[in-house]
Amino acid sequence: ALWSTFLKWIALGGVVGVLSGTASAFFLHSLDYVTNLRTNHGWLLFLLPLGGALVSYLYLKFGQNSAKGNNLILEQINEGQETIPLRMAPLVLFGTLVTHLFGGSAGREGTAVQMGGSLAEWFGKTIRIDADDRKILLMCGISGGFGSIFGTPLAGTIFGLEVIAIGLISHRALLPCFTSSFVGDLIATRLWNVHHLHYRIGTVPAVEMSIVLKVVIASILFGLVSLLFSELTHALKRGFTAIFQNPMLKSAVGGFLVIALVAIVGTRDYLGLGLPLIQQSFESEVSPFAFLWKLLFTSVTLGAGFQGGEVTPLFAIGATMGHSLADLLGLYAPFLAALGFIAVFCGATNTPIACFIMGIELFGSDAAVYLFIACLVSYLFSGHSGIYTSQRIGVSKS
Amino acid sequence: ALWSTFLKWIALGGVVGVLSGTASAFFLHSLDYVTNLRTNHGWLLFLLPLGGALVSYLYLKFGQNSAKGNNLILEQINEGQETIPLRMAPLVLFGTLVTHLFGGSAGREGTAVQMGGSLAEWFGKTIRIDADDRKILLMCGISGGFGSIFGTPLAGTIFGLEVIAIGLISHRALLPCFTSSFVGDLIATRLWNVHHLHYRIGTVPAVEMSIVLKVVIASILFGLVSLLFSELTHALKRGFTAIFQNPMLKSAVGGFLVIALVAIVGTRDYLGLGLPLIQQSFESEVSPFAFLWKLLFTSVTLGAGFQGGEVTPLFAIGATMGHSLADLLGLYAPFLAALGFIAVFCGATNTPIACFIMGIELFGSDAAVYLFIACLVSYLFSGHSGIYTSQRIGVSKS
Repeated sequence: ALWSTFLKWIALGGVVGVLSGTASAFFLHSLDYVTNLRTNHGWLLFLLPLGGALVSYLYLKFGQNSAKGNNLILEQINEGQETIPLRMAPLVLFGTLVTHLFGGSAGREGTAVQMGGSLAEWFGKTIRIDADDRKILLMCGISGGFGSIFGTPLAGTIFGLEVIAIGLISHRALLPCFTSSFVGDLIATRLWNVHHLHYRIGTVPAVEMSIVLKVVIASILFGLVSLLFSELTHALKRGFTAIFQNPMLKSAVGGFLVIALVAIVGTRDYLGLGLPLIQQSFESEVSPFAFLWKLLFTSVTLGAGFQGGEVTPLFAIGATMGHSLADLLGLYAPFLAALGFIAVFCGATNTPIACFIMGIELFGSDAAVYLFIACLVSYLFSGHSGIYTSQRIGVSKS
Repeated sequence: ALWSTFLKWIALGGVVGVLSGTASAFFLHSLDYVTNLRTNHGWLLFLLPLGGALVSYLYLKFGQNSAKGNNLILEQINEGQETIPLRMAPLVLFGTLVTHLFGGSAGREGTAVQMGGSLAEWFGKTIRIDADDRKILLMCGISGGFGSIFGTPLAGTIFGLEVIAIGLISHRALLPCFTSSFVGDLIATRLWNVHHLHYRIGTVPAVEMSIVLKVVIASILFGLVSLLFSELTHALKRGFTAIFQNPMLKSAVGGFLVIALVAIVGTRDYLGLGLPLIQQSFESEVSPFAFLWKLLFTSVTLGAGFQGGEVTPLFAIGATMGHSLADLLGLYAPFLAALGFIAVFCGATNTPIACFIMGIELFGSDAAVYLFIACLVSYLFSGHSGIYTSQRIGVSKS
């Protein structure tokens, strides 16, 4: 039984890895392309309301239950009542590219996870998999999408296991999720030539109580900001939906709001993924309240129903915030940017072990203890809220 | 509720950390002392039967339920029916020092975990803690003992969470266990001047399918050897107990068997913790079947009722085995020694995430993917067996 389980899940996880890694690679290359278009053609921003209305129309007309996004995947793993339509993959891919082409502020992990999940579901139906194995296959889809979109196969593995329920990791799907995430990353980087940006954490201070205390204080703030992001995004979603019954109108208004925000703040730095903001946090300077602006831009974009993930903006919020706090706390800016990068993400997704391991994969092991503290504290202080409303509470935080 | 829970567990976990870190430090310094005595005075080996009989007498006369060892701590966390006597701490400390003074082959983590657990229990009784919190405090004792005895605070944290049940991690005790493990390690190294040996993993091969396949093959063997170790030790325990009703006689016979093994193999390399074996695996040469000898010496020592842990001998078994396999598989010896070091330990304790993180803490992040594969595969192939018979099966492996 052991050998057959072993070989079975290497095969099934491997197939999901190939599917989700390929989807992620296609998505990442397209994302580069549309982001370049947007930065070279400033007028594209003014089409954001129209783009939003178009995508909302497509979801309304053809989406079935796809609009639930990541939550649909989590619900199916936790309850297993509905089905996940294959059309979710092209819809979320197209929708996210539209968001980024016209300058919405959003991420990419949601898109990768939804493509991975719907491709895994389609594959499972094709081979007539049973209900228990279907859940594992969906977790493979999450891991494969996450691992390949960020180039972090080990964080992808644990993310797929940890995101399902707050406070629990089950090793049941450890091998399947690892295989999918590992193969997905290999396929994306080796076969499809995806390159991931790297940031340097720089000098890591030795472990001393004064530094630990400062890191704890910063991490409490990271956790509270992730809570603010989750709650603001949910509130805007509720508000927009209550005011505008018509989803096309809702997204169009959201697009105009983003344009208005650009006019108010006087810069386009907060559009798109926010990769330049992250790079500046590690290498040069960012404005002190950049993290709040990025938070607001992203909450408005996603609250109005635009497609895209949350995680890369969360990285940008955390890195810029860490950079800003570094001066106040007397810590190195790249060091605190790295901690913010993973800690804000951790607070919003409630996945401390996955985020810690992502920190190791991105920044090496020099800061291991600090990375762990940042994830742990942010996890605790973000409360039971989070960006995934379908995440179960496995174990209470207090 | 969040703030009070946060501060409460930093305080309680911190106290357990101070207690278990101090106990570990005293133990490690004493262990150095008795190991030096043994290597300088060869005749001490011939007193091993007498030493074993003495310790078994003490456990019989004064031990109450202490003889259950680590399993008593695990049982109390899982069921909570009995109490853990404070005398467990001095008994296991004295018993382990006797084992090492006279040349038994055993480890130290069992001793550290039992001291940490019984001190945590004593502390919990003193402050009249309730039943739920008592379990968390016992997990702090495990984490504090483990983290401080090996100088790996993060692995100590996860070990305390993961060892309770096969296949599950609950984040319930994440903060308490981290605080205890982190403080325990700081107290041991900063206040009590404990130094830990470091081994270098050397050149790590780039990720390629041929190398991955070789690592998987080696890790299957690591898992099977950990299974062999667990089963042989349990079988010898049962056999010795069935043959010798008198525990003093049992341990004395075990002592004679170890002496006989030394005569047969013609070297004293397999006595004690096995740290020189580990060092040779990373830096020079070891005999091809060293791992089997170390396994046999340790199983006989522990099977006959001597006190001490299993983990450091498991490190030695894994490192020497990795070194021996490296030639056969065409891999670097220190690289495969590092993978064996954590993988055999992982298979025997069923704690893949803790072992992976220990690998990161000891060997850095260059080999992260290989360390993960080694832990995962060894975990799967060691079956549901393990050195801790009171570990629950949370999630089946196949």
